[in-house]
Amino acid sequence: MKLVIIGGVAGGASAAARARRLSEDADIVLLERGPDVSFANCGLPYYIGGTIAQRDKLLVVTPERLRQRFKLDVRTRSSVVSIDRAAKTVRVHDLDDDREYAQPYDKLILAPGAAPFRPPIPGIDQPGVYTLRNLSDTDRIKQALNANVREAVIVGAGFIGLELAEGLVRQGIKTTILELANQILPPFDAEMTTPLAVELTAKGVVVQLGQTVEAIAPSEQGLVLRLNVGETLTAQLVIVGIGVRPENRLAVEAGLEVGPRGGIRVDEYLQTSDPDIYAVGDAIETVDFVTGDKTQVPLAGPANRQGRIAADNIFGRRSRYRGTQGTAIVGFFDRVAALTGAAEKTLKRLGKPYRKVYVHPANHAGYYPGAQPMSLKVLFDPQTGQLLGAQAVGGAGVDKRIDVLAVAIQAGMTVYDLEEMELCYAPQFGSAKDPVNMAGFVAAGLLRGDHPQSDWETVAARPDAWYLLDVRTSQEYAVGHVPNAVNIPVDELRSRLSDMPRERRIAAYCQVGQRGYLAARILAQKGFDVVNLGGGYTTYRLHHPEQVAAIK
Amino acid sequence: MKLVIIGGVAGGASAAARARRLSEDADIVLLERGPDVSFANCGLPYYIGGTIAQRDKLLVVTPERLRQRFKLDVRTRSSVVSIDRAAKTVRVHDLDDDREYAQPYDKLILAPGAAPFRPPIPGIDQPGVYTLRNLSDTDRIKQALNANVREAVIVGAGFIGLELAEGLVRQGIKTTILELANQILPPFDAEMTTPLAVELTAKGVVVQLGQTVEAIAPSEQGLVLRLNVGETLTAQLVIVGIGVRPENRLAVEAGLEVGPRGGIRVDEYLQTSDPDIYAVGDAIETVDFVTGDKTQVPLAGPANRQGRIAADNIFGRRSRYRGTQGTAIVGFFDRVAALTGAAEKTLKRLGKPYRKVYVHPANHAGYYPGAQPMSLKVLFDPQTGQLLGAQAVGGAGVDKRIDVLAVAIQAGMTVYDLEEMELCYAPQFGSAKDPVNMAGFVAAGLLRGDHPQSDWETVAARPDAWYLLDVRTSQEYAVGHVPNAVNIPVDELRSRLSDMPRERRIAAYCQVGQRGYLAARILAQKGFDVVNLGGGYTTYRLHHPEQVAAIK
Repeated sequence: MKLVIIGGVAGGASAAARARRLSEDADIVLLERGPDVSFANCGLPYYIGGTIAQRDKLLVVTPERLRQRFKLDVRTRSSVVSIDRAAKTVRVHDLDDDREYAQPYDKLILAPGAAPFRPPIPGIDQPGVYTLRNLSDTDRIKQALNANVREAVIVGAGFIGLELAEGLVRQGIKTTILELANQILPPFDAEMTTPLAVELTAKGVVVQLGQTVEAIAPSEQGLVLRLNVGETLTAQLVIVGIGVRPENRLAVEAGLEVGPRGGIRVDEYLQTSDPDIYAVGDAIETVDFVTGDKTQVPLAGPANRQGRIAADNIFGRRSRYRGTQGTAIVGFFDRVAALTGAAEKTLKRLGKPYRKVYVHPANHAGYYPGAQPMSLKVLFDPQTGQLLGAQAVGGAGVDKRIDVLAVAIQAGMTVYDLEEMELCYAPQFGSAKDPVNMAGFVAAGLLRGDHPQSDWETVAARPDAWYLLDVRTSQEYAVGHVPNAVNIPVDELRSRLSDMPRERRIAAYCQVGQRGYLAARILAQKGFDVVNLGGGYTTYRLHHPEQVAAIK
Repeated sequence: MKLVIIGGVAGGASAAARARRLSEDADIVLLERGPDVSFANCGLPYYIGGTIAQRDKLLVVTPERLRQRFKLDVRTRSSVVSIDRAAKTVRVHDLDDDREYAQPYDKLILAPGAAPFRPPIPGIDQPGVYTLRNLSDTDRIKQALNANVREAVIVGAGFIGLELAEGLVRQGIKTTILELANQILPPFDAEMTTPLAVELTAKGVVVQLGQTVEAIAPSEQGLVLRLNVGETLTAQLVIVGIGVRPENRLAVEAGLEVGPRGGIRVDEYLQTSDPDIYAVGDAIETVDFVTGDKTQVPLAGPANRQGRIAADNIFGRRSRYRGTQGTAIVGFFDRVAALTGAAEKTLKRLGKPYRKVYVHPANHAGYYPGAQPMSLKVLFDPQTGQLLGAQAVGGAGVDKRIDVLAVAIQAGMTVYDLEEMELCYAPQFGSAKDPVNMAGFVAAGLLRGDHPQSDWETVAARPDAWYLLDVRTSQEYAVGHVPNAVNIPVDELRSRLSDMPRERRIAAYCQVGQRGYLAARILAQKGFDVVNLGGGYTTYRLHHPEQVAAIK
């Protein structure tokens, strides 16, 4: 068996190591265009920011190590020019010797990755404009930082853009983020990003939503960026991070099928339209585990997993890729945001029915020092309660709750199962009722119908139709409340029933939803037409960024 | 409906609040013997240790709050003397007024909790000997600490004992832990506690295994403890924490069924043998979710959940308690230990077939600063791969992995599902191949048979039967290795096949199992009879505490 693998980072390197474990005698050739294999892609922003101090930390595995340990024929600086499927060869350009040769294969794995998208705008190729994909890019950006960078612009408020923003600000650089969408972190639902945008601003990052760059030109002070909103910005460093495109040229030219967004098409065994060619990683089109739709998800975990599966299938073990959940996390400054499964916006776009709940608990028992608030949103099927997606924003403990929910989604669990989860509890780690349990209580109560509940969007759509009831204390109400809301604290509710209208629908809210829940139960049992507004005033503030300057 | 609840801490308070939500008109009487309701039981050791500075933080909910918000008839300092099932009344002793009265009920919930066991040894009632259950105990211990305590003895190395040990040592008190078993933290398998005992010792706690106290007598210097091993210890403070006993007196005297270990017997709806009486929390016998056996698990999470379920059933919602997984966690100094499901010792005792794997990964990407090692043990069914239990020891991230595995056990998932899990990955939170994935790879490889693997116990049972092969580097070998092991680094293995015996069984090991895995694959494919020793030298050291003084 002669196995050739194109691309030596996450998916390619995983496939090669797995292949060797499965077959001691196979010829395994690993072709990598760059000088490095298996480097720590996700660490690049942290090396630029200085959190990771030594460059060699990023070199997880050296070519030499792969050769020695796995008896791999590793060829770096080897760019594949074309695939001849009939002859079963790939044409390799040895960049060091500048020579070309044909490399035969029995089976081929494509792991070329995805390239940062460079928009075709004037000046995009100016010195000082960078994208970030590999160690060479990283070195160039580090070098630029050593020169006199006072102002930087990051185009695109995605995961890498925000990680970079933190690193630049920490180095004293005035940093602006331009994002064409009306929110940062486009994979998240907009309201969940509100506290994140507040955090960025508080830490000195200038966040300009609805804005992007249309042209870049050099000047005395550095690069001048002309924005779509007519203004200009000056910066000595520009990093463009507005998404990636599958590196599909080889596949397309070889006549392999690709999807509408360019991802190399594979079946569940990661086989392309040519049975002798497999493809893995950021370059492929895969299936969304929750929605069943085709998707492209450039994530390291799935790439590694796919590499393993492709090798399994090539060496005779039938191994299936179940699709990608899109579990992802980002941390910057003191904030963490993570998500798994489908976002609300995705479910809306696909017309899939769903319900949602928000809870805003602390990451661990409030009586133990250092508890940090989080906001957790859970999406689920309105009939069965099956979990569809989850998003969380906060500090410590966000990763844990999204991991728990990722497993629950994988298992096909429902909101009723969340109620039952028995998670680690000591006061520094969680609560006797964990945030995930809380989300389960609220969601299951909603589906059982014993918890009349509505969304802020529903109320906002017809504000006149509702009698808005704020059941918090008068002190809380005084600090801030929803316009036109009437304040009757929950503890006074039973004695003030006559103050409430029987002819109108009442929408009750508190700070996070718990007192509103009790208020709704009390009023419903007393014959009022009432709903609790899910997640309370805290959720309202997520939906109204203009009101959240004080969100912590 | 007149609902009476005996006990106002976790299970009782949860039941009361849930009951009110379900019925605005029910009479709900909450009888609590002590002065406080719903206090932070799990926070007591941290208040004693000073981490929680303010006592009022421990009062999660006051009686007044329960009265106002939930319209509960809360009666503290009210001890129930007896239950008259025929008359459907309980006899209440009002401790403040020292009067007794009969309180009628339609439904009764018993949530009396469990009391610390005080062994019947001479001197157990001496001043200076404490158990820790409630705020009054806590106050007494705090007061004792304000006096001149130089030396303390904690009897029992359970969760609370270790939490207390940290708190005492931090206050400069010479602290000794006596534990009759040959390991600390009896719920864990012994080998998993090795690094924890090392940590305690390193932080100045004297840990004496196989020892307990047989008599306590006063002296000039404080209390003199006579130990089972003949020696004596002197201390000014003794805290006994050797487990709890269900408070079943009321139940037993009322003729309700109790289990052999004293837990009040309930069905899956938490109904006792009297259909009008439910029981919840530490006082009940419940079902082990994994083994199906009867068990008694005093944990706050399950108690809260049970309170909710009992209220549901009383108010006409059929709600089932699925049993307890025993998910628990403890943190002291820089160490965290957590477990869920069945321990190996439990499976052995029950004669249930199982396999196990160990992995020793870091909590997050090694290239990001601050990665901390952990040891993770996973137990599973040898036929189906269904998960049976998991234990982890380390620092940060231990709670997350056990929570993930707790959910996997709840869902009935297998080791093959662990391979597929898509968990949060950014370098400060995890790895592209998470510790849970790694455990899945090793376990699934073992079941698929492509990974010849054995346990250290198997090799230790017949050391002469094995050719022990250490495949680490010569430097690692020099630092420490298994007696009689031969060192051939994995990278040299292919060129030194002739050095290896073809007539003997080879047991290969490395540091954590990964290189041993590759070595086993290489040798097996070359016709050798070989196994990889699961978890490598790190697992060996867990099993050989005498060798682990250097474990970090």
